[in-house]
Amino acid sequence: MDAELIFLGTIRSQLTRLESCPKQGREGAPPARVEILPEFKDAIEGMAPGDRVIILTWFHQSDRRTLQVHPRGNPANPLTGVFLTRSPARPNPVGLHPVRVLSVDDQGIEVTPMEALDGTPVIDIKVDLIPKKR
Amino acid sequence: MDAELIFLGTIRSQLTRLESCPKQGREGAPPARVEILPEFKDAIEGMAPGDRVIILTWFHQSDRRTLQVHPRGNPANPLTGVFLTRSPARPNPVGLHPVRVLSVDDQGIEVTPMEALDGTPVIDIKVDLIPKKR
Repeated sequence: MDAELIFLGTIRSQLTRLESCPKQGREGAPPARVEILPEFKDAIEGMAPGDRVIILTWFHQSDRRTLQVHPRGNPANPLTGVFLTRSPARPNPVGLHPVRVLSVDDQGIEVTPMEALDGTPVIDIKVDLIPKKR
Repeated sequence: MDAELIFLGTIRSQLTRLESCPKQGREGAPPARVEILPEFKDAIEGMAPGDRVIILTWFHQSDRRTLQVHPRGNPANPLTGVFLTRSPARPNPVGLHPVRVLSVDDQGIEVTPMEALDGTPVIDIKVDLIPKKR
């Protein structure tokens, strides 16, 4: 181990089976609740409906030894390094979810779209900067 | 601790002093090398110049107890929850860097722009999906 992650909260979603999770949020994922632990509540100060944020999650069920996959689980796609994919199987299984904030309350926020499974730990939230040409 | 992170590699940059790092990559950050440890080399298979990827780093010098900041370090900006900022000071100090790949070799990749300090650990690389309307 090189660094220690703290779980800041949990995804609460209607997606309770891994097989029913869309591969990307924009592929029809539903809204979800992001429960924030009381000790981290001050870190959402100022957040409001309509804000665009990036949720980082920890795919706790992933195989961390996987270095290459057939993208989208399709054997017709050539074996590709996981760093060139969004596969949840990767050495550090961090999920990256750009979402829109629907509502904010004392226990957390509601966001959409969210493809992560119910119970998935949340490790960070950041403002989503509008892309410029890079 | 709730989960263990593995460092997969290291940023090698001309930015060797924290004070000289731009706050965002798009604010004039230079190219940098992303050294990948030999055991994770297979995970960049297929990567090529021109690819858009997101590098996740670990801001190892950050204060993890910070929950609110004055955005951009400017006291004129109201105190704001770190989850609505890109402050490196946050409970899990993950850095998120959208970059373009300049070159790929056996020991890693060269990317631009990269605002992280020389020596910053790398924890993940993902393909950058082109944003759609959310």
